[in-house]
Amino acid sequence: MSERVIITDVGPRDGLQNQPKILSVEQRVELVQAIAAAGVPQIEVGSFVSPKAVPAMAGTDLVFAALDTAGFTVPTIALIPNMKGYELARAAGAKTVTMVLYASDGMAQKNAAMSMAEAEDVTLKILALAKQDGIDVIATIAVAFACPFDGPTDPAVVEIIAAKFMAAGADQVVLADTIGAAHPQQVRDLTAALVARHGAEKLGCHFHDTRAMGLANVYAAVESGIRRFDSSIAGLGGCPFAPGASGNVATDDIAMMLQQMGFDTGINLDKLMQASDLAQALTGTAPGGRSKAWLQSHLAKQAG
Amino acid sequence: MSERVIITDVGPRDGLQNQPKILSVEQRVELVQAIAAAGVPQIEVGSFVSPKAVPAMAGTDLVFAALDTAGFTVPTIALIPNMKGYELARAAGAKTVTMVLYASDGMAQKNAAMSMAEAEDVTLKILALAKQDGIDVIATIAVAFACPFDGPTDPAVVEIIAAKFMAAGADQVVLADTIGAAHPQQVRDLTAALVARHGAEKLGCHFHDTRAMGLANVYAAVESGIRRFDSSIAGLGGCPFAPGASGNVATDDIAMMLQQMGFDTGINLDKLMQASDLAQALTGTAPGGRSKAWLQSHLAKQAG
Repeated sequence: MSERVIITDVGPRDGLQNQPKILSVEQRVELVQAIAAAGVPQIEVGSFVSPKAVPAMAGTDLVFAALDTAGFTVPTIALIPNMKGYELARAAGAKTVTMVLYASDGMAQKNAAMSMAEAEDVTLKILALAKQDGIDVIATIAVAFACPFDGPTDPAVVEIIAAKFMAAGADQVVLADTIGAAHPQQVRDLTAALVARHGAEKLGCHFHDTRAMGLANVYAAVESGIRRFDSSIAGLGGCPFAPGASGNVATDDIAMMLQQMGFDTGINLDKLMQASDLAQALTGTAPGGRSKAWLQSHLAKQAG
Repeated sequence: MSERVIITDVGPRDGLQNQPKILSVEQRVELVQAIAAAGVPQIEVGSFVSPKAVPAMAGTDLVFAALDTAGFTVPTIALIPNMKGYELARAAGAKTVTMVLYASDGMAQKNAAMSMAEAEDVTLKILALAKQDGIDVIATIAVAFACPFDGPTDPAVVEIIAAKFMAAGADQVVLADTIGAAHPQQVRDLTAALVARHGAEKLGCHFHDTRAMGLANVYAAVESGIRRFDSSIAGLGGCPFAPGASGNVATDDIAMMLQQMGFDTGINLDKLMQASDLAQALTGTAPGGRSKAWLQSHLAKQAG
């Protein structure tokens, strides 16, 4: 029996919100279903944020409704910024919500117009409510390695936030390299410290490939025992601070690497390539996984 | 004092021989000089192979002569396949030669029309001669992780070849992931075993980014103590077995990652971007480092 790694595809949320083209509700549903058909076990379907601030995420309630009507059974996740977002996600039937915490005040202010402490307070309140509602909560710590405004992140700050939300009963705590600035030694050190303290079960990582170190960081985290990763179909996404830079680590790449390393991801690579092709066709700008040329040639040979 | 890592740019050899466009001697010299100007400490300038088999490498003697005339002082390396190649490299003034050994008979036959044992014999003969001539020898073990013809490589085979050439006095032994098929756990395991036996001083690694795992493999080798890496300016290269796939690990990416990890590479990233731009302009097909969009934006901000 090979060891399981849980991949959460965040392309329909983190990916699409960074794409210039805005997809229709139908297109978003089609993309989510294609990702699920490839066996990806968890999907971040959208966010309940202000449609003015993030137009690409308008109509996330309709995406949830369409998936529900279609009898969709894969665990769906919604990102929420505040109590209003939580209520909308609950009403839409989200089984899990992701809340964002901040390891820097600069990013907290810029992204959420709150201090780090205010973001923690809101998340603790929602976490208590979600427990009553039977909804799981993922606490994602943004800029866990570096912040574009405040510079390098002190690992001690991340360790304190993680400990607080583990103690409060978060179902997962995810370290997010929001701007793709982490290097693998940094990842190895921080994840090792957190796994030593909390075990790996509830810890996850979220990397961007901005500086081409996405898979190196995934491997560093795997070495520390991390077995939960966010990634994005076809590498959807981008970096608002570096035009043209790569987006989230591609699900295409991470699934291939982990499977080659002997892990069980539950993902069918042939069907994943179909979802990746769809993401590229729908957006017109998704780069595709960096390993895609090889992977497609390899799969064609296997089939031929 | 930060720890030194030695990067050898093999773009003018391994990169250019896989590009559709054939550069003139003058263009090849210009590229080598641009790479050297960025502070890359060693450069594989070309190979002395049959111009019929590898037209892109015809005139490597003229490249050496032009560099000599220009008073070029950066250590130059020539790849050679046999005794005739050695004699040509010596006549051209190469300070170091790279010889290729094979960890599979399939690749030895296909690439050099020899058995593994025959390639070893030739290399041992040339190694003895080079010692008398004061020329350094790099013994590169091709398909050290997997072979496109014979499948996964048995690490024990690589360990035996490495031990033989360490004992014979090779100046370096390089593990080459010729087809970009290695995954980081495999790299970590094999490099750790070799470093435990021989120390890291004379060991190097050569990775391709075919499956997007190039930097992950570099990091895995760094963790084992490896401090010598081959890479290719602007990611020049490719994979004859997967059209469109990435080439060698880009010097752009590896230099950035290692510097961010705190290593001293001696490379100036601004000037490296100029060499990368030149490689892209000359070939028309070099992809550029995968981190290039970010790196250029970052360097522009620092300068501005």
